[in-house]
Amino acid sequence: YGDEGGAVGYLIGEENQGMRYMFTMMNNARLSVGLEGLALAERAYQDARAYAQERRQGRAIGAPAGESSLIIEHADVRRMLLTMKANIEAMRGLLYLTAEAMDRSAHEPDEAGREASRELADLLIPIAKGWSTDLGVEMTSLAIQVYGGMGYIEETGVAQHFRDARIPPIYEGTNGIQAMDLVGRKLGLDGGEVVREFLAMIASLDPALVKGGDDLVSIRDNLAEALTSLVDTTNWLMHEGHKDVQVALAGATPYLRMFSLVTGGWIMARQAVAAHAALEAGEGDADFLRAKIVTARFFCEQILPQAAGLVGAVQAGPADLYAIAPEYL
Amino acid sequence: YGDEGGAVGYLIGEENQGMRYMFTMMNNARLSVGLEGLALAERAYQDARAYAQERRQGRAIGAPAGESSLIIEHADVRRMLLTMKANIEAMRGLLYLTAEAMDRSAHEPDEAGREASRELADLLIPIAKGWSTDLGVEMTSLAIQVYGGMGYIEETGVAQHFRDARIPPIYEGTNGIQAMDLVGRKLGLDGGEVVREFLAMIASLDPALVKGGDDLVSIRDNLAEALTSLVDTTNWLMHEGHKDVQVALAGATPYLRMFSLVTGGWIMARQAVAAHAALEAGEGDADFLRAKIVTARFFCEQILPQAAGLVGAVQAGPADLYAIAPEYL
Repeated sequence: YGDEGGAVGYLIGEENQGMRYMFTMMNNARLSVGLEGLALAERAYQDARAYAQERRQGRAIGAPAGESSLIIEHADVRRMLLTMKANIEAMRGLLYLTAEAMDRSAHEPDEAGREASRELADLLIPIAKGWSTDLGVEMTSLAIQVYGGMGYIEETGVAQHFRDARIPPIYEGTNGIQAMDLVGRKLGLDGGEVVREFLAMIASLDPALVKGGDDLVSIRDNLAEALTSLVDTTNWLMHEGHKDVQVALAGATPYLRMFSLVTGGWIMARQAVAAHAALEAGEGDADFLRAKIVTARFFCEQILPQAAGLVGAVQAGPADLYAIAPEYL
Repeated sequence: YGDEGGAVGYLIGEENQGMRYMFTMMNNARLSVGLEGLALAERAYQDARAYAQERRQGRAIGAPAGESSLIIEHADVRRMLLTMKANIEAMRGLLYLTAEAMDRSAHEPDEAGREASRELADLLIPIAKGWSTDLGVEMTSLAIQVYGGMGYIEETGVAQHFRDARIPPIYEGTNGIQAMDLVGRKLGLDGGEVVREFLAMIASLDPALVKGGDDLVSIRDNLAEALTSLVDTTNWLMHEGHKDVQVALAGATPYLRMFSLVTGGWIMARQAVAAHAALEAGEGDADFLRAKIVTARFFCEQILPQAAGLVGAVQAGPADLYAIAPEYL
């Protein structure tokens, strides 16, 4: 370690640019950890989906008397599987979007395009890391629930995914740090223009959803409602958080979840628009495309409305968090 | 096992009452498993709270430069601890309430009182088991998050609580079964009178909350709003679920969560009313009583609003759950 004068330092890149280079590395690392959350959720989902099609238990509504049903026939098992599928497709779309922005930040032909992509990637990174790794825990937990007692013993292997999924919310910056990064640094990018443009991009999907007619109407309504919550809360947070950073930090974690839900809803809505257009044109695998629309609708009707339920937590401020002395906690 | 004619059967209690006796045992067992969820959450909370008061990392807002802060000074760590504390106090109250109803069902002097208590216990059991064990997983997961990387290795012991907490949502009737029990059997008790009386009891707290003035006003507003969601959804579920049981089963799990949140909010609100009255009378430990009001307010402002976000999932019906063929899941 250089005790004998043998240590040599090398300058990598330009002087005084180290912090910026480090953040390039950080973005890559954080995207990869987000991907770890997705990958564990996907693997656990594949396992649970297969198990639900071989395990028999109870009798589903409408099934003939005297025989056990496959558990995939029970509504609540379907709910668990569809919850996994919808969240996985949403987070996969988010990670692709983030990776695309990072690629474009290096390869767009003009500097303005590279800069815009760099800023989009910077905005999305805490969402991609935080949400995907929180969902990694939640979705692997659901997979165990599909297995029932068989999931808790080690024979099936599904419990391993749940244990593995617990570290990604911690390393490469805990998800609390991701949330602080989102409200403390990313909302302020380019004077707030980056987030405003992103939210406007979500809003601009609306005419395409209208064209989808009845198939997409509930996707449209739910996305519009959740987006309104997010826009209002973002404006509030930029205003109040600017006056007192502690206000922003107090609401950071529920805000990251709200931002993630709306981004996920938008991604699923875009997929539904594309699937609807392909069906209209008679292109592609119709069953796959219809499944895509159902999955997007499930996400937007049944998961996305949680966003509005987070407004109170985001805007409550720090007073109550600090009102109780540690010995009374 | 009686191959040589040595097996003897004993009748326990009266003939043809076995199913009913079994359910008495089931209620006790389910309450105990709910308690397991609470106990693991409480133990993990105690660990996390202690760790947050010895571990230094980063610099909290307003802390002097050049020294690390205890992590309990960071807003997001406070949020995690208060989330644990509030959920734990709400579920402890729920389990006490359920145990009280079970005691009264055996010891009330008149049969009408015993019967009313039995019905209340029957209504609450799936909530007590399902919610407490789901929260057991969620709260032990948060405790690991407070520890950061130290929580993921085995040295601190907190990871064990997370693993242990994963089985209570499965055994003694999976939480999916609890949800089916709630919508399929418990909502219909006494023609729906039992749940209607319970919801009316929640509503009847309102005048006491009004008397609490500014201290309790946000508790009152949030409880009233969440209760409206629950009442509307309950009426919808009893009506639509009566016509098609599959509709009720499709929404059962989010309905159980909504019911639990409102019940938890009501329990915390009752505690806040009692704490406020004691403070006014100058009785008891004022710091403890003020902490109780803060905790109740945190629950009602920041956790309870999730109830409204579940309406869409409860009322979506079974069509989309079954719309995707297994090979496209």
